Amino acid sequence: RISWISDIIVVVSPENIETMKSIIEKYGHKRVMIVKGGITRHRSIFNGLKVFAENEFSNHLLQKPEVVIIHDAVRPFVEEDILSKVVMAAKEHGAAGAIRPLVSTVIASAADGCLDHSLERARYRASEMPQAFLFDTIYEAYQQCTDYDLDYGTECLHLALKYCNTSAKLVEGTADLWKVTYKRDLYAAESIIKDNLSQQVCIITNVKEAVAQVGFLLHECLKSQIKVEAVSTCLSKNDSHLQNIFSGQCYNFICVNDKKYAIQETQQLVDMLEKSNIPLSYPVVVILVHLDISENISFSIGMEELTRIKKFAREVKKKNILVYGLLIQYK
Amino acid sequence: RISWISDIIVVVSPENIETMKSIIEKYGHKRVMIVKGGITRHRSIFNGLKVFAENEFSNHLLQKPEVVIIHDAVRPFVEEDILSKVVMAAKEHGAAGAIRPLVSTVIASAADGCLDHSLERARYRASEMPQAFLFDTIYEAYQQCTDYDLDYGTECLHLALKYCNTSAKLVEGTADLWKVTYKRDLYAAESIIKDNLSQQVCIITNVKEAVAQVGFLLHECLKSQIKVEAVSTCLSKNDSHLQNIFSGQCYNFICVNDKKYAIQETQQLVDMLEKSNIPLSYPVVVILVHLDISENISFSIGMEELTRIKKFAREVKKKNILVYGLLIQYK
Repeated sequence: RISWISDIIVVVSPENIETMKSIIEKYGHKRVMIVKGGITRHRSIFNGLKVFAENEFSNHLLQKPEVVIIHDAVRPFVEEDILSKVVMAAKEHGAAGAIRPLVSTVIASAADGCLDHSLERARYRASEMPQAFLFDTIYEAYQQCTDYDLDYGTECLHLALKYCNTSAKLVEGTADLWKVTYKRDLYAAESIIKDNLSQQVCIITNVKEAVAQVGFLLHECLKSQIKVEAVSTCLSKNDSHLQNIFSGQCYNFICVNDKKYAIQETQQLVDMLEKSNIPLSYPVVVILVHLDISENISFSIGMEELTRIKKFAREVKKKNILVYGLLIQYK
Repeated sequence: RISWISDIIVVVSPENIETMKSIIEKYGHKRVMIVKGGITRHRSIFNGLKVFAENEFSNHLLQKPEVVIIHDAVRPFVEEDILSKVVMAAKEHGAAGAIRPLVSTVIASAADGCLDHSLERARYRASEMPQAFLFDTIYEAYQQCTDYDLDYGTECLHLALKYCNTSAKLVEGTADLWKVTYKRDLYAAESIIKDNLSQQVCIITNVKEAVAQVGFLLHECLKSQIKVEAVSTCLSKNDSHLQNIFSGQCYNFICVNDKKYAIQETQQLVDMLEKSNIPLSYPVVVILVHLDISENISFSIGMEELTRIKKFAREVKKKNILVYGLLIQYK
C-alpha cells in the first residue's frame, strides 16, 4: 500500500504461521516476510529486528534499513500520514512514537487495594503505535536490555531512552490508532470498514435509451447520500474511464442492462477488476440489475436467469467479489 | 431498573434540558430529577449533589442519602453488580471506584514534546465510573475544594483523598464500563445492544394443528442459535405464561396464524406488552407470519392484508414496537 516501505516483517506466534502464510498468499501481499514470535512483546519485536542484522535468517538476509517502523497488528487503521510523520521524526531524533490524550484518569493503588494517588490527566499521554527508530538505535537498545526488560517491559520508547539515551519525539496520532482489544472493538472495526467501503458507488448501464434512463434516475436518487460515478458504456470499449474509477478505490458497482445474458457483461467487469491493481482484501460488491422490458414477460425465464447468476456469484465469491442479482420485470 | 436506588439526579447542560425531559417522559422513567449542569465536570457533579443539601431546589428537596453513586452517562452498560460493589465498599471506606487495567502505556512528555519518562504499566490503573461515596464525605470535599479543582480537576476520588483524607477502595470493573467517546464507540455500543436484544425469541401460534406444527418446526430450526420460548395458545386465555416471558425480558416475538385478520391477535399482544412492565426503551420486534393454507389462494387478498399490517405497524412503531408482516401462501 505504501511504496516507500521496502520490507514488511510480520512476527507471528508459531501456531499461527501457516494461517498467516495462507493470508499472504490469498491476498497477494508483496514484500512480506514471516518471522516466528517470542513469548513476550519485546522478544517478538527483537526477533523481527534480527532479520536485518543476524545470519540466523541468512537465506533471506535483507538490506538493513535506515529507519524501522514498529507497529501492532491490532491497530489496523494506520494511515500513511502518521507513518510518514514518525519516520521523519525518527530520522531527526533517533526515535518517535504516536501518542493520544488519556481517556480516563490514571491512578496508582496502594498495597491494600486503596487509592494511593491519581495523576494529573493533562500532564500524561497514552503511548500508541506506530513508533519509528533509527535501526541502529533500537537494535542496540534490544541487544543491551536485560532479560527483565524482555520479559516484563512493553514500551520500545523506554528502551531507546534507557539504553541509547535517545529521547523519542512524541507525535499526536488520530483516534483511529486505537487497539482492537475487546469484542466491542471488533464491532467498531467492522463498522468502520463498512463505512469506508460504502463511500462511493459506480453505476454502469449500456447505451440503450431505456436502460441509460434507469441509470440516470438511480444516480439522481443516490447522489444525496453517496458519491456516484455513472458510466453509460459498452463495457469492453471504454476501459480508461473505468480504470480511473477502479484506481479511485471504488468497491461498489451497479450494472443495469436488459440483455438476455446479463452475466457476460458482469463477467467482463470481474475480469477488468482482476486485471486492475485494486487490492481485493476488501470485498467488491456488484449488483446486477436485469431489466426485463420486453412485451412477453416470462416468469420462468427470469428465474432461470437468476439461477445462472447465483451459480456465477458462487464462483466469483472465491475472488472476494460479491455478486447480487436483481430481476425487474415491467411493461 | 434497580430498586435500591431511591433517586436519580441527571445533570444536563442547559441546552439539552428539554430533550432530556422528553426522553424521561417518553420512556416513563421514574425517580428521576433533572439538574442544570455547570461548565466543568466537577461543577456539574457539585450541582447534582446540592439537590440533597441546599434550599436552592427547595420545592423538591430530596431526602439526603447515606451513599451516593456518581456515574457518567457515556458508560451506558453499567451492571447492578458493580454498582452494588462500589456502594458496599463506600459504606466501609467512605469512597470507592471502579478501575480497569491500562490498555496502553502511559508516558509523560517533556516541554520540548519529547519523552520524559514512561510509567510501568502494571503499577497503574485506569480510573473508571461508577464511583460511590458516603454522601457527607463527597459533599464536604466539594464544599472545600478550590476553584482550580472545580475548573481543571476530573477525579472525584482525588477530591475525597485531598479534602477528607478518605482513600477510596478500588474495585475491579468489567470491560463494559468503557467510555463511549469516539464514533467507533457508538458503533460498538449499537452492536452490543443488538447482541443483547437477540438472545431470546418467543414463538406464538394458535392451537390449530397445521399452525402449531409450523411453530414446532420453527422452534427446531432456531433452537441451536438462540433461546426459544414456544407458546401454542389463544392469546387472550393464557396470560400467566406470557407474562413470565415478558418479565424474562424477551424482546422478539414471532406470531404465526392462519386467520384472515391476523392483526387482531397482534393487537392483543401489543396491549399485553404495554400492560406488562417491561421497559420499552429497547424496541420490541414482532414478526407476524400469516400462513395462508386455504384451497383458494388469492394474491390480492394477501396484499390487502399486508397493507393493513403496514398501517398497523406505523401506529405501534410510536410505542417502540416494530411489527413486520410476512405472508406465506401454499397449497
